Amino acid sequence: MADSPNCDLKSLSPLQLFERVTEQGEKVRALKAGKAPKDEIDAAVRMLLSLKLSYKTTTGQDYQAGLPPKDLVLINNGTAKEEDEDLVDPWNVQTSNAKGVDYDKLIVRFGSSKIDTDLINRIERATGQKPHHFLRRGIFFSHRDMDQVLDAYENKKSFYLYTGRGPSSQAMHVGHLIPFMFTKWLQEVFDVPLVIQLTDDEKYLWKDMTIEKAYEYAKENAKDIIACGFDVNKTFIFSDLDYLGASPGFYKNIVKVQKHVTFNQVKGIFGFTDSDCIGKISFPAIQAAPSFSSSFPQIFNGKDNIQCLIPCAIDQDPYFRMTRDVAPRIGQPKPALLHSVFFPALQGAQTKMSASDPNSSIFLTDTPKQIKTKINKHAFSGGRDTIEEHRKYGGNCDVDVSFMYLTFFLEDDDRLEQLKQAYTSGELLTGELKKVLIETMQPLVAAHQERRKQVTDEIVKQFMTPRKLAFEF
Amino acid sequence: MADSPNCDLKSLSPLQLFERVTEQGEKVRALKAGKAPKDEIDAAVRMLLSLKLSYKTTTGQDYQAGLPPKDLVLINNGTAKEEDEDLVDPWNVQTSNAKGVDYDKLIVRFGSSKIDTDLINRIERATGQKPHHFLRRGIFFSHRDMDQVLDAYENKKSFYLYTGRGPSSQAMHVGHLIPFMFTKWLQEVFDVPLVIQLTDDEKYLWKDMTIEKAYEYAKENAKDIIACGFDVNKTFIFSDLDYLGASPGFYKNIVKVQKHVTFNQVKGIFGFTDSDCIGKISFPAIQAAPSFSSSFPQIFNGKDNIQCLIPCAIDQDPYFRMTRDVAPRIGQPKPALLHSVFFPALQGAQTKMSASDPNSSIFLTDTPKQIKTKINKHAFSGGRDTIEEHRKYGGNCDVDVSFMYLTFFLEDDDRLEQLKQAYTSGELLTGELKKVLIETMQPLVAAHQERRKQVTDEIVKQFMTPRKLAFEF
Repeated sequence: MADSPNCDLKSLSPLQLFERVTEQGEKVRALKAGKAPKDEIDAAVRMLLSLKLSYKTTTGQDYQAGLPPKDLVLINNGTAKEEDEDLVDPWNVQTSNAKGVDYDKLIVRFGSSKIDTDLINRIERATGQKPHHFLRRGIFFSHRDMDQVLDAYENKKSFYLYTGRGPSSQAMHVGHLIPFMFTKWLQEVFDVPLVIQLTDDEKYLWKDMTIEKAYEYAKENAKDIIACGFDVNKTFIFSDLDYLGASPGFYKNIVKVQKHVTFNQVKGIFGFTDSDCIGKISFPAIQAAPSFSSSFPQIFNGKDNIQCLIPCAIDQDPYFRMTRDVAPRIGQPKPALLHSVFFPALQGAQTKMSASDPNSSIFLTDTPKQIKTKINKHAFSGGRDTIEEHRKYGGNCDVDVSFMYLTFFLEDDDRLEQLKQAYTSGELLTGELKKVLIETMQPLVAAHQERRKQVTDEIVKQFMTPRKLAFEF
Repeated sequence: MADSPNCDLKSLSPLQLFERVTEQGEKVRALKAGKAPKDEIDAAVRMLLSLKLSYKTTTGQDYQAGLPPKDLVLINNGTAKEEDEDLVDPWNVQTSNAKGVDYDKLIVRFGSSKIDTDLINRIERATGQKPHHFLRRGIFFSHRDMDQVLDAYENKKSFYLYTGRGPSSQAMHVGHLIPFMFTKWLQEVFDVPLVIQLTDDEKYLWKDMTIEKAYEYAKENAKDIIACGFDVNKTFIFSDLDYLGASPGFYKNIVKVQKHVTFNQVKGIFGFTDSDCIGKISFPAIQAAPSFSSSFPQIFNGKDNIQCLIPCAIDQDPYFRMTRDVAPRIGQPKPALLHSVFFPALQGAQTKMSASDPNSSIFLTDTPKQIKTKINKHAFSGGRDTIEEHRKYGGNCDVDVSFMYLTFFLEDDDRLEQLKQAYTSGELLTGELKKVLIETMQPLVAAHQERRKQVTDEIVKQFMTPRKLAFEF
């Protein structure tokens, strides 16, 4: 265990060092207040100065009480963000820019790496497959350690995929499919096992919802996920409420993470307050634990060192920055990440689509008519106010939600480029662009509904049963 | 669920009301700071005033920011106790009085009830058995709702027993046996099922200890507990690290408790700080959950309304006051409690015996010679400085540790009374009293060791396997 008081300071993360300085400062104050012997106080002060020096060496900043190191708490409950910065955390996405969140800035703030052409080419070489259009179009735009995953993969060391969903309602919208569509592709081209966490416990803790309801939503959502076409022999889907009580390996990893994260840390990372329930405060460990292969002994044959790769929307990154901070201290490999942009609301890219606002979303249960009405009525247009102006000046694809949706769902690169040209030049009108989107979404949603109908309770049960998958570890 | 914003204020506990006032105050401040519309601020202020009024009606005190209601946070990390009060919490027992903690005062502070002659007589009538000497001698001295347990029992409604141990080391001392000896007696005379929690996860979180070590200690401690003579057909012993990952019912109750307790509350009750790890902060829910029969579907056939009775040392009461506060809000019966005094250290009753100080304790592994030496060398004496003075003025049984130990372990009431008379009168010398104690403890510990040898790993496994017990529910 790395938390004995004399462990090597160099092995500590900036946030851990910050904690240590804070604790030592409190100790010095307590000794002075308690009129402890002088030599004891002096020794504690020397330790404090040495910790402050380590902190400065590691972070390049002086220690300031109450101000945790910036790179680890960049996004929190919004209070610490700078005035013009976008608000991005697991519960909120908000920007004042109609083009959406500034993702290049986010990469700098989060300290992740851009998915550049080199990395995309490497993925193509490693898998022998044309990169998914989510990669080619920058929808998955940021990563952590994907190069290391590829290094290992090229040396025949495999990995596993982990993604998830918080089942807050029965109905999922098309934006929810993005990580699953991409994960399915990754699973196919790399041929690796996949675990999918349904955080029904999180939804019970955060929402005004019974445990039974949260669990019911988890099973309903599992049907939509399975309908994306995952292979039952390579995929394990689990509800926390089920699996936590069915796997001592999972709980052991949770309690290990919980030992190595303080309230100060989750306060900084997630913006929790003293009025939050203790369930919320300890929940981040539950989302962290599936990043470690020992949480799934049945899949990995008890091995605890299998690399994990997490495809997710960028708003989930705070959980995994925390996880990566803890991993080496509990003797586990850090999970790698692939981050996607947010799926915009129909009303515009200032916020992400939300299942709780029916008009902000195209639901997987919508009829062709509902899809048509929603797009025509609500999809924010980058076109001009009059046909004359539009013909003259052209539309703006950067803020046009219909065009944005087409970048997600229209796979044909040439067609998409033609549409962009025509819309920008003014040749294509808003109504015509919306028509293309309607004709793209209607069959896509209908096909999903058709596949979902095939997903029986029995099939859900198969996916959700802890078991060996078709891989040897 | 009782936590929707519009739920009936009358159904809230003082601590919940305190939380609501605090939250509403924060809301008002936020609205004002954010220059919200006047009518919105006014509505929030009206709500605040109404909450403050409810608080005053319920508690009889004015709301004071930062000062939770007194009856629920009487014992905490010690800072709020009055100068002359004893310090009693799950991690500390300290008093300046050589007679030990003032238990009558503790009953008033904790708001529990004294176990009086009437209650003891009722237990005798209900069971048809002579009350255990721990009851007759005031070693179990306080209770919550034991009268209700007896009411129900007399009407053929059964209950179950829950007790536990934190396995902080391999070696248990004789003081650790007290709750188990009493629980065994309760189980026999009432003929009820028993669950015993080994909080190995707690020890991992609190101590510098690996998970593997904590689990190993749990299994070792289980042997000593089993050696007390529990019936395998009526007793389920579980390690948290094992059982939490083996019972969805248990985890569901944990997460329900976690949703209904805030960080402010555990801070008030247990003295946690922002520097504590999130595992400690959420742990109280794990000790709370076995108070609900739905945590053990295999024993109670899925029934969630079986009454629980918890025999424990009084320092564990904070966990169960919290549990009793939460129970009605999650639709569960409140557990009843029987509280014991602390087992004093050999050095005197100012503090309880501790496994971490080898000289403060008689260990269950001690040889007859070690027992003799420890008692002769360390047992604090209430005798006089010289034989002459002792013969003249007599010894003081109230502070004499050897006499205290005999009240725990010498079952013969007449003999104990004779010893008391003789020691108080000066007829019996300290060395002679110690000799009686040595001759009582040596065979008791030897017999325990003999029974423990019979407890094989196979027997431990039987006790620790989740299964049906010999009762119908």
